[in-house]
Formats: sequence, structure tokens, C-alpha cells
Amino acid sequence: MTNKEDRKAAVYALGARAKEAAARMALLGPAEKNRLLTRMAAALRDGSLDILEDNALDVRAAKSKGLTAAFIDRLTLTPARVEDMAKGLEDLAALKDPLGEVQGGWIGAQGIEITRVCVPLGVVGMIYEARPNVTADAAGICFKTGNAVILRGSSEAKKSNKAIVDILARTLRWEGGPEDAILLLADTSRAAAAELMRMNRYLDVLIPRGGAGLIQTVVREATVPVIETGIGNCHVYVDASADLGSALDILINAKTQRPGVCNAAESLLVHRDIAAEFLPAAGKALEASGVELRACTESIRYLEGAKAATEEDYGAEFLDMIISVKVVDGLDEAINHINTYGTKHTEAIITRDYEAARRFTRRIDAAVVLVNASTRFTDGSMFGFGAEIGISTQKLHARGPMGLEEMTTYRYIVQGDGQVRL
Amino acid sequence: MTNKEDRKAAVYALGARAKEAAARMALLGPAEKNRLLTRMAAALRDGSLDILEDNALDVRAAKSKGLTAAFIDRLTLTPARVEDMAKGLEDLAALKDPLGEVQGGWIGAQGIEITRVCVPLGVVGMIYEARPNVTADAAGICFKTGNAVILRGSSEAKKSNKAIVDILARTLRWEGGPEDAILLLADTSRAAAAELMRMNRYLDVLIPRGGAGLIQTVVREATVPVIETGIGNCHVYVDASADLGSALDILINAKTQRPGVCNAAESLLVHRDIAAEFLPAAGKALEASGVELRACTESIRYLEGAKAATEEDYGAEFLDMIISVKVVDGLDEAINHINTYGTKHTEAIITRDYEAARRFTRRIDAAVVLVNASTRFTDGSMFGFGAEIGISTQKLHARGPMGLEEMTTYRYIVQGDGQVRL
Repeated sequence: MTNKEDRKAAVYALGARAKEAAARMALLGPAEKNRLLTRMAAALRDGSLDILEDNALDVRAAKSKGLTAAFIDRLTLTPARVEDMAKGLEDLAALKDPLGEVQGGWIGAQGIEITRVCVPLGVVGMIYEARPNVTADAAGICFKTGNAVILRGSSEAKKSNKAIVDILARTLRWEGGPEDAILLLADTSRAAAAELMRMNRYLDVLIPRGGAGLIQTVVREATVPVIETGIGNCHVYVDASADLGSALDILINAKTQRPGVCNAAESLLVHRDIAAEFLPAAGKALEASGVELRACTESIRYLEGAKAATEEDYGAEFLDMIISVKVVDGLDEAINHINTYGTKHTEAIITRDYEAARRFTRRIDAAVVLVNASTRFTDGSMFGFGAEIGISTQKLHARGPMGLEEMTTYRYIVQGDGQVRL
Repeated sequence: MTNKEDRKAAVYALGARAKEAAARMALLGPAEKNRLLTRMAAALRDGSLDILEDNALDVRAAKSKGLTAAFIDRLTLTPARVEDMAKGLEDLAALKDPLGEVQGGWIGAQGIEITRVCVPLGVVGMIYEARPNVTADAAGICFKTGNAVILRGSSEAKKSNKAIVDILARTLRWEGGPEDAILLLADTSRAAAAELMRMNRYLDVLIPRGGAGLIQTVVREATVPVIETGIGNCHVYVDASADLGSALDILINAKTQRPGVCNAAESLLVHRDIAAEFLPAAGKALEASGVELRACTESIRYLEGAKAATEEDYGAEFLDMIISVKVVDGLDEAINHINTYGTKHTEAIITRDYEAARRFTRRIDAAVVLVNASTRFTDGSMFGFGAEIGISTQKLHARGPMGLEEMTTYRYIVQGDGQVRL
């Protein structure tokens, strides 16, 4: 399928099927959805060998293309990872269903009765990168929240994704559920993705999950409403009053516990008053963990082996064992620096000063602002959401970790007795 | 200013000022904001003659360009309309401030304390058409909700809008408020609007208000998150069980009370069982009100003087004294027709059947679904919101009438005691 019109027709045909399935999904009760989730979990376990076989083909192809070890690791499924996918669907079945909740209600003009009710978004498009477990997770969250989903994974995970979606959709078919509620866009070309991004007729929302390049492409090209996710240039600011032992623990955790994820710290800001005391120790501990330091002209004096930071370093999301370091005059410079270079994801202050904590939390423009805790806590599981589809860095609709509620919208039901507007 | 780079620089300079003002706005307390709103209202009254003078210049230019009487009417300000703008700002001052409300809070993993707090969106861009009173209304709503706003009105209202914004911003300056919180994009070229739509660096959200052409251009071209507003192909479905007298009242109200607005009815669906009884009376009443009928092959038999409806008529938002009419087999055909041709704005059923009411409200995919009331009730004032910035027809963030709450977002504050992630 190389013809542009054919490609578009195929994407739109998928959209039409998803829209029909969404109408059925919206009427499915919690018990039935949970039964189907449990059946899909069982089917993933039963189909584990098939999934692993197809995944092995993807992995072999990726290796022969010379992709990095980190990439191969993210792509590779194991029996344990398939079990995690199955367990994830069962966990979803156990969560409270957000749909149908009456979020409010009141009497409007002339006695009309207004009720605001939680309903599904409709048809969700997910564009994501190599990890095939996202396929099952995203499908499960969309299913639990009454949405139909069109999944568009990367070409490298094509066979793995197809194996997973085949099993999920087949289970829905066998069990009498709406099988088109979980659809895979098999055409992994950029052109097909571009069609998806502009398919306003059928898609209600598009959620890109992956690196900055993917997110920015979607933001630039999509006409469907987008939820931007997961670009995190997160800062740890160590205030003059900080407990320096605690500050060091948090810094090391935020930077090194899992450097490749969006809530890892990418930049350290240190109050001038404690720079001479804190930075030498922090530098040693970071370097001992294998972190490369890129330091401002002042901090570099305290940091053996650090490179000079460039303007770009302050704006970078390294997703790697690298950190930028800057000494600041005080809280306000820290806040200004963060609001200039940050990505509105997660920002932390380490302080024992009440006023500093208040000022920081009030003035920082980010989804999550932490006091005396690691940036790594910005996560659906740490927040207790039970499931997470991504971390929003925009301000519309949802901010920060997105769980089940964030995959819903509402509808106003207005009941009258023949009212006409005066 | 015709050079592309200069134009972009000017728009971005406005963006930078708005962003700085937004940071100040976010810290302004309710009492101070309300004081400033009241002062701005007084200033509009004091400056009424200046506004009317500048408006007269806009109106004269519009007339000499031969624009329609309806357009001239929307453009024209009167002392009463200026008074309404002033009163609108005072009404806003009296409304509850949504900011700072704690929307929830709980203990997360390892004892972190999570609080979700209502905060402003930040910098709002408004692109709107000829009515200059929107300038004061939108500025007031954004100000009340702690946002900075960049207003981009139409070129035809350029002098009127400038006069209004000059007065509002000058009042803020004199009173020590953040004067850059209310900014006008004086360059009303399409090219400048295009820069605004892609200024993700400074804009948090873009709200277009106007006709379908404007909304679709913004949806197509913007990279900034957009809230689509106000395209309403609204239906009135008269069920077999309807009280036909009430159905007629609602139909006439929905179609004719104010045909040029988005919540006016554009299409009538009638159950076959009552078509022969209802349609002749409905047709007469509509025609007596001056409404043109475009009818399906079945309904046209009952409607003297009706034209045959085309496929396009079913999808049209006429915003005029025109209505499409279709006989349907029953509730399900009505629902399918609406979900196919509707714009997810407002849909009404007229019925006395409990089950039909339930089925309609559960299956229709629209922001507002009404039972036995006119579509004209989809309106911030009818909902009791006190203020309205527009009616959202998308599903992300806000749906239906958007009041003050819909102009806010939230931030998570996480308080810890040195927690690192295990």
C-alpha cells in the first residue's frame, strides 16, 4: 500500500470501525468490562509463547539493523514482561470505574435540571515508541475507561504489537465484546501516522508517548486535540536552609535511580550560601555514580572533572547520566531559571525554610512541585492511581500523571418539562 | 510592518510580556483582582465617549466597504452596550474566585502528601470576530481567573478594540496592577494570527470564537492547544410519544428565538408515527415565522412550500432562518443521524417516554443533551455560570458552556520529608 489515497482510506476505515466500537463501549457496564479485561489477561498468558516468538523476530531485525543495546532492551519481551502485561489488565479490572459518576448537578434557569456526568472520551489515538508492553497497557486503560483506541506503535515492534492486539481483539470477539475497541494501525509509515494525526472526523484525542522528537512532531502536525506528555527537564533546587544530607540523597535518587525516564532530574540548582559546602560532596557522589557534570562558571570551581555548561545544557532533557549544575543567588533566581528552562513537568526544592517552600510551590509553573522529595515521585503508581497512560506537560484537560479519570470527559444532561428560553 | 521576521518578533514580544504578567497574575489575591475589575468597569463608563467615537470610525469604514447590515449591527457599540461591558466586569467581581481551591488531596507512596490545587492556565490567546464587546468580556474572564490574555480581534473592529484595551490596561497601570495582563495584538493580519497560533513558547491555550471558517482555520493551523468552540448543528428530535404542543413551542423557540447563534436548532427529526400529525402544523408555524424548510422525501409531503433537502443540508449550521427536516423510523435512527451529522454541541429530544429519554441521553455524543427543553438553554447564563467565554465542542478539558472554572487548570503540590523513591 504505497498510494496516498489508499493509505488514507485504510486509516479512515480503521477510524470508522473505532467510532462504532466507541459507541458500544460507552454502554458497556463495569462488570462486563472487568470480565473482558480478565479474559484478555488470561489470553495474554495463554498466548505468551506466540507473543515471545513474534517479539524475537522484531528483536532479531532490530539487532541486524545495529540498534543500541538500550533500544533492544526496551523492545525485548520476556515471560516476566508478558506476565506483567497480563497482571496489568487484571489490576485494571480491580480499579473503580470512573464512568457514570455524577460530577455535579444543579437547577439552572427556568427550573431546568442540569447534571454533569462522567463519560468516555470516545476514540483515543496513541502514537508511541518501541516498548511493546505499552500496547497492552494503553489498550487496557482505554478499555477500562470505555474508550476505543487506535494504537500506532513503532515499526521496530510491529510483529510484537500485532501479536498482542490480535490476542486482545480475538478475546473480545470470542467473548462477545466490541472487538474493534482495540485496533492496531498496521501501517507504521510516517505518512499513515500523519493521516491519523489529522483524522478529526473519528479521533477525539491523540496521545503521543515517546521521546521529544515524537512529541514535537505530533504537536506540530496534529489537528486532532493532543495531550502532550513526558518531556521532563526537571530541576532539584537545594536551598540555603536545606538539610544537606537529605538534599544529597534526593539528588542522587532523582538523577540516577532511572536516568532514562521523564521524571529524572536533569539539572541541579544550588543556593550560593551553601555552594562551597554542598557542591564538592554532591560532585563526588554524582561522579561516583557515573554522572557527567556540566557546570556553570561558579559551580565548576567546586566540581572536579566537570565540564563547562552551555546555554543548551540548561534546556536539555538528557535522559542519561548527565546533569547541569548552576549556582543561584537565591530562591527567586532559582524560580526564574526553572520557569525559563523547565518543561512544566516536575520541579523540586530541598529546604527547611517554611517561607521558601511556600514561595517555590506558589511560583513554579509545573504539573508537580515537590518539597523535600525526589522528582521520581511524579508517577501514576506513586500517586496511587493504579494505572497511568502518561504524564501530561500541558495545562489543558490533564496535568501530571494521567490515570483513569484523565481518560474521561463529561456530558451535561438537562431535564426539562417543556421549557423554552424567554 | 510587512517583514515576516519583524512581524514574528512583534508577536513574540507581546507573548513575553504576557508571560511575565501571567506570573504576577497568578499571585494576585481575589480582593485585589475584584478591586481592579471594578476600577476597569468604572473606567469603561468614564471612557464611553472615546470608545463610541473610535467605534464610529470602525462602523463608517465597514459601511463604506459594503459589509452586511447584520455585520454592522454586531460591530456597532451603543452607550447601552458599553454599559453592559462595564456591568459585565462588575458581575465578574461578584463571582466566587475558583483559584486556590483544593480539588483533592491524599497520601501517596512512602507517605508523600499530595494536594491538587486550582491554578490559572497562564497565557490565553483569544482570536475572535467582529463584536467588540467580546474584547471586554474575554479580558474580564481571563483577568478574574488569574490569566494573562492576548486578544486578537478582527481588523474591522480594530479601533474599537484598541480603545477598550487601552482603557483597561491604563487602569491596571494606574492602579498598580499588571497592565500586560490584557494585551491586544494590534496587527490584525492573517500572518500575525498565524504566528500567534504557533507561539507555544508563550501561549498555554488558544480559544477561537467566531464562525466555522475561523474555528477550522485555527484547528488546522495551531500548534498551541486549542479549545474548539461554538459550531452547533443542533437537532430537535420529536419522539412518537411527545406532547406535540410542547414540541412545537420548543421547536419554534430553538429555531427562531435567535437563529444566528450556535445553540439554535438547525435540524428537525420527527418520528414517523406522528409525522402526519405534527409536520403540517410545524411547517405552518415555522413558515409563519419566516423559516425556510428543507425537507426529506417523506416529510416534504406534509410541508407546503418546502424545498428538497440535500445531504449537505443535514450537515449544515445555517445560522439563519432555515431548517432541515427529516422523518425517522424511530429513536435509533434519530440517534444515528445525530451522531453522524451533529457537531457534538447540543441535542434535544421531546418525549413523554421514560425509556426513550434515557436511551437518547445515554447514546447521544454531545456536550449537552436535553430532554423536553429548548436547545437555546446551552448557555453559561442559563447554566448559572455568571460568565461564559464560549461553548466547547471538543472533549478535552471542557465541554459545553465554559465559565470561570474552565479557564483554570491544576497543579500538584507534593510535600515530603526527604523521601527518595525505592
